[in-house]
Amino acid sequence: MRQMVERIRVIVWNEGRHEQRNAAVRAVYPEGIHGAIAAALREQTDLAVRTATLDAPEHGLTEEALRETDALLWWGHIAHEEVREEVAERVVRHVLEGMGLIVLHSGHLSKVFRRLMGTSCTLKWREADERERIWNVEPGHPVAAGIGETIELERTEMYGERFDVPPPERVVFISWYEGGEVFRSGCTWERGYGRVFYLAPGHETYPIYYQPQIRRVLVNAVRWVRPRVRREHACRNVPPLEKLGG
Amino acid sequence: MRQMVERIRVIVWNEGRHEQRNAAVRAVYPEGIHGAIAAALREQTDLAVRTATLDAPEHGLTEEALRETDALLWWGHIAHEEVREEVAERVVRHVLEGMGLIVLHSGHLSKVFRRLMGTSCTLKWREADERERIWNVEPGHPVAAGIGETIELERTEMYGERFDVPPPERVVFISWYEGGEVFRSGCTWERGYGRVFYLAPGHETYPIYYQPQIRRVLVNAVRWVRPRVRREHACRNVPPLEKLGG
Amino acid sequence: MRQMVERIRVIVWNEGRHEQRNAAVRAVYPEGIHGAIAAALREQTDLAVRTATLDAPEHGLTEEALRETDALLWWGHIAHEEVREEVAERVVRHVLEGMGLIVLHSGHLSKVFRRLMGTSCTLKWREADERERIWNVEPGHPVAAGIGETIELERTEMYGERFDVPPPERVVFISWYEGGEVFRSGCTWERGYGRVFYLAPGHETYPIYYQPQIRRVLVNAVRWVRPRVRREHACRNVPPLEKLGG
Amino acid sequence: MRQMVERIRVIVWNEGRHEQRNAAVRAVYPEGIHGAIAAALREQTDLAVRTATLDAPEHGLTEEALRETDALLWWGHIAHEEVREEVAERVVRHVLEGMGLIVLHSGHLSKVFRRLMGTSCTLKWREADERERIWNVEPGHPVAAGIGETIELERTEMYGERFDVPPPERVVFISWYEGGEVFRSGCTWERGYGRVFYLAPGHETYPIYYQPQIRRVLVNAVRWVRPRVRREHACRNVPPLEKLGG
Repeated sequence: MRQMVERIRVIVWNEGRHEQRNAAVRAVYPEGIHGAIAAALREQTDLAVRTATLDAPEHGLTEEALRETDALLWWGHIAHEEVREEVAERVVRHVLEGMGLIVLHSGHLSKVFRRLMGTSCTLKWREADERERIWNVEPGHPVAAGIGETIELERTEMYGERFDVPPPERVVFISWYEGGEVFRSGCTWERGYGRVFYLAPGHETYPIYYQPQIRRVLVNAVRWVRPRVRREHACRNVPPLEKLGG
Repeated sequence: MRQMVERIRVIVWNEGRHEQRNAAVRAVYPEGIHGAIAAALREQTDLAVRTATLDAPEHGLTEEALRETDALLWWGHIAHEEVREEVAERVVRHVLEGMGLIVLHSGHLSKVFRRLMGTSCTLKWREADERERIWNVEPGHPVAAGIGETIELERTEMYGERFDVPPPERVVFISWYEGGEVFRSGCTWERGYGRVFYLAPGHETYPIYYQPQIRRVLVNAVRWVRPRVRREHACRNVPPLEKLGG
Repeated sequence: MRQMVERIRVIVWNEGRHEQRNAAVRAVYPEGIHGAIAAALREQTDLAVRTATLDAPEHGLTEEALRETDALLWWGHIAHEEVREEVAERVVRHVLEGMGLIVLHSGHLSKVFRRLMGTSCTLKWREADERERIWNVEPGHPVAAGIGETIELERTEMYGERFDVPPPERVVFISWYEGGEVFRSGCTWERGYGRVFYLAPGHETYPIYYQPQIRRVLVNAVRWVRPRVRREHACRNVPPLEKLGG
Repeated sequence: MRQMVERIRVIVWNEGRHEQRNAAVRAVYPEGIHGAIAAALREQTDLAVRTATLDAPEHGLTEEALRETDALLWWGHIAHEEVREEVAERVVRHVLEGMGLIVLHSGHLSKVFRRLMGTSCTLKWREADERERIWNVEPGHPVAAGIGETIELERTEMYGERFDVPPPERVVFISWYEGGEVFRSGCTWERGYGRVFYLAPGHETYPIYYQPQIRRVLVNAVRWVRPRVRREHACRNVPPLEKLGG
């Protein structure tokens, strides 16, 4: 049988500062990290992909833009505090109302992720060009579809436990590091009507977002976080449904 | 055998505004809602209980006060927005570092609860003097110790689903209302190293905090949320534990 | 855009004993409970539906039949112990390997559900022709798609807490009963690679499976439990991926 | 203040076969694995410790013995199938009624653990004398009290993902292996009124149960799993609490 399927509307958001300042980063990501990710997503015919960066007006995340977005990917690092309060609050509200959010790598300290988690989102880290092996511990989870048993990264930034997040609903990936640490590197949560996926790998000086399995995870995640419902939250005063004082 | 047990240090925090403005509330709670709750807790020899209100300097929640607090109870309603930002952030930080938090009734919309949950914390409501039957669905949970199968409240404010909170770690109580609704009225979460318990019953015009089972739940909850560890969160740069490039 | 979609292969399994023995049940379900449910599912063009009953050889659940099944619905009540051990084990194994399972009403005491849960699955009950209001507390969950805020049942068998199941991954529905109880009446779990959904309403003497919202829940649930992967479980002895003794 | 505390009644259960057959195991555990664990627990004045083995009548796990047990530790490997059905069922029933259970290492395939989990409990494994680093990812959990950031084991049997268990309520420990794998090596669940803790390290040819941190985890776990309530499960037919047909 055949079905009509709506395209999933995606914004790839990137702070975009490393690329401006650091030739090494530009060498790896000449179109920006957002450009590389958007290119990966655009290979899929069911995705309609735009990009936005910190330096755009309202960071490219106006009320209108978010209202027409099903999945927002978020990469930020050195300019988390430059994200305006009202934009961060707006993103959080849209997630609670159903929009999907995928937080990448150093986005663990972004305003939007920390507010949705309610915790410090701190972790250990090290830049030492070491190897990482991402174990797929939930092969049945849609985010892990087609990934196989492991993802091998030749050079990575280490992110180590304890990762201060609320207990994830699903830990999809656990990373092994050459230097001796482990990390819950792919985690899911729900907040309001929205789904949130965090993916740890992705340092700006490594070509990780060109890795085919990582690209597959990003595509999977976009499909998985798309809204099931979209509605506002409010406290409502309601009449009784049953006769009182019976 | 005998053991030395440290007393649990408690602050009962109350906005304290209804009591100032409304004679009906004063009639029910002449010592304030905080006074009634503190009296319940002071019946227990293992608890050391203080109170604090919105109108005290720094709302009575200075860094020093929180550092010496194991469990904070929070009642607020009409003045959530008067709670100063830095005090709300301070409370949240202490919870993440291990302090226990018990949020009561209309405190579901407080700054501290909403920030720890990351959601809107909205719900349905109705004031109609109706009956509520609280079902104890986790008789093995420490918060429900000694409660029996139900708690019956003759007159209550209805709080109905959908309660917009992250999936609780445990739903300890589910309420049945005469008017036809249900509510997850006793829920637990962890945030950082801290435990959070939300208890729904407790409207300011009803003598609910004098009900013996409710007092028992409050005592149980104080004991349950007390810190297991107390420590700060930080991102740490760490050296490898294993030889790299092996 | 258009997509090809495989049809979901469903078996509606029914013990089928009440229908043989009790004219009142036959009057409500002349084609059997399985017949009524299968008719509801057959209205959907993406579902390929068969039925099976206890009295069929191997209860209609041969290895071949299960291997070609994506979702199994289970209704049983008075003959749980007549289900053969090897058939119960076979169903459990297929769930662990990815097949979806939907357990209905009195199936809470079935061998297959109790084995997958690991608990007693006991509850309170009463047959008193009372009203039930099912609250949809997860409107974003696929199982609740299109259901609205409540499902009203004019006459129902009461199922009350405490329901002895492991903490559900999601409590999608909570029921309010006229007689004063509450119940987690729609719950989800994962076991192995398989999804399990339990739906409480559905007593044999009430026409509940003809109720349009209940039929919608059944259709939703079939779609939600269908396999994401299908594979066997085994303990594997594996060589190291890294050089040892480095 | 001072409090009377009841001693926690513990049974350390061991299959006890490796010790009979294998001189290398006897060399490591001359009093049996159960003897080494019991000795660790007996250093604590709040624990009352007995041992039992497969070869005792009813495996040492009579109805009377279990009724007077607060925490049961389970070590088994090559004789899981020799555990009698009625004894396995009895242990499971006592856990559901409140008794604590701690399952060790190769006990992941024991009848009692598999029945309580409802899954295959399979995993990867390798015996290669490699190193293991156990990361404490929940320093606030009572089972991890006093453990510090890691437990280092010089030689271990590797247990790798995917571990086919239901999503744990808490993953307290995650192991890093020299050979490249990771494992959720300390996990908690609740079943019925009982608590279950699984601890992965503990192969019979390594002196792991003499390691001070491992002994501390065992003591912590015994204290954590002890019953909060103890009661039977049954389906009860109950009268309405509210007037029907109102």
